[in-house]
Amino acid sequence: VVARTHLFIRIDLATGVRIGPGKIALLEAIRSAGSISGAGRAMRMSYRKAWLLVDEINRALQEPAVATAPGGAKGGGATLTPTGEQLVRLYHEIESEVQSAAGSEFRAIETLLCHPEKH
Amino acid sequence: VVARTHLFIRIDLATGVRIGPGKIALLEAIRSAGSISGAGRAMRMSYRKAWLLVDEINRALQEPAVATAPGGAKGGGATLTPTGEQLVRLYHEIESEVQSAAGSEFRAIETLLCHPEKH
Repeated sequence: VVARTHLFIRIDLATGVRIGPGKIALLEAIRSAGSISGAGRAMRMSYRKAWLLVDEINRALQEPAVATAPGGAKGGGATLTPTGEQLVRLYHEIESEVQSAAGSEFRAIETLLCHPEKH
Repeated sequence: VVARTHLFIRIDLATGVRIGPGKIALLEAIRSAGSISGAGRAMRMSYRKAWLLVDEINRALQEPAVATAPGGAKGGGATLTPTGEQLVRLYHEIESEVQSAAGSEFRAIETLLCHPEKH
């Protein structure tokens, strides 16, 4: 939860799939946890929900973003593929480009707000 | 409805109010229609829904974005105030800054997609 005014950025694909901060955070949680179930727990999300989001991301890409190893009912380990790493990196690059490119307009909007915040 | 991959940008205020393409389009529709009810019709939105969105925007700002004239049950005319015009202009400036600043990363993401689009 971010408690100050910020820009929310999402990539809306022609297919209807949307890749925003939530899916990127899930990919990063999979990288840290080494599994979809572990990532789901870290993000307080059911395994089913996490799996469906990963499946949605994988289907949108030519190469999957997450590779899973066979396992039990809850699946084996999961890792980010080079495509997954690239997607995460590009998303963060877009975020940082956007913050610097739109900074002055963003600050101008903040001056219009009821409770201008200090940065 | 945009049928190609695009960046979705929204300004999430600390108060929880979110200003994205929908609210900006509503403000522009009010400018065109000269009333909240007319803007609601143009956007296939109930008067109540349009009014609530305008109220949410107005409450988030030091000066309202939309000024309304007294009228009947459905309200009188409505116009964008200088603050409203400024908000719309700044939002579009952010959009265009973002598209040019993040263009190369955005195109790199498109090459990862299942059905790369031509631009």
